[in-house]
Amino acid sequence: MTPGKTLVSPPIEINREELIEFSAKWDPMPFHVDEDAGIKAFGSITAPGIYMLAIKQQLIHQLPTMAVIASLGYENVRFQEPLRPGDIVVLHLEWISRRLSKSKPDRGIVTIQLSLINQSNQVVMTLLDSVLAYRRSLATLVAQH
Amino acid sequence: MTPGKTLVSPPIEINREELIEFSAKWDPMPFHVDEDAGIKAFGSITAPGIYMLAIKQQLIHQLPTMAVIASLGYENVRFQEPLRPGDIVVLHLEWISRRLSKSKPDRGIVTIQLSLINQSNQVVMTLLDSVLAYRRSLATLVAQH
Repeated sequence: MTPGKTLVSPPIEINREELIEFSAKWDPMPFHVDEDAGIKAFGSITAPGIYMLAIKQQLIHQLPTMAVIASLGYENVRFQEPLRPGDIVVLHLEWISRRLSKSKPDRGIVTIQLSLINQSNQVVMTLLDSVLAYRRSLATLVAQH
Repeated sequence: MTPGKTLVSPPIEINREELIEFSAKWDPMPFHVDEDAGIKAFGSITAPGIYMLAIKQQLIHQLPTMAVIASLGYENVRFQEPLRPGDIVVLHLEWISRRLSKSKPDRGIVTIQLSLINQSNQVVMTLLDSVLAYRRSLATLVAQH
């Protein structure tokens, strides 16, 4: 988790049926679930922000294992470009900063910049995520048990 | 959308099966999907942040209609307390500020503070959401068509 170091996930294709089913449950705006409404509003069905965030979270699990305990929160979440069925996206991760926990010496707080990038190299969404993680020594110890 | 005005959603109960199914797909950390791992880590299975955000988005649709076009982004997303199966939560919404769009006179940008509150009156998650919305006059016009 060295500041400046980056990782890129494998690509994932945005599935129309999954996007519509997810949107119908969690954010049923007409342009997320109905082809005609989507075409009229944005040229096609588009994904809600919550779906972009879910794809981000799923792709994090495709990156090399980190000893993450929990996310403390996000800053600067920006929905910059529409995400559409058939788009192929990757997740870029860059470590921005890290500091040791004051109360728990076995842990640190790491800030990571996450960007969802589509097949045209457009940045679809960006955010800063602050995560609580075990320090390497303990993470290694845990992995060995 | 008057700054200072607040809204509260109806309550929703967090369903264990839905939480586990959602987590298994989008954020399969052991303590989100496995009872034993959850009990060991946090006293029970807990919801991932992405599930809290999905619940937030679902509850927004339980509030009086707003002429929202899109979310531009979030600030200050904080996962403050664990969300657990069986918890009963409401969404608090407060309008913080509003300004007119410089480029499109029929629209404005509204900042709302959203808080997910559990049955013990604990704040589980908070965030600021900036949304693009139609101005009242046009929204009324649209509603009439």
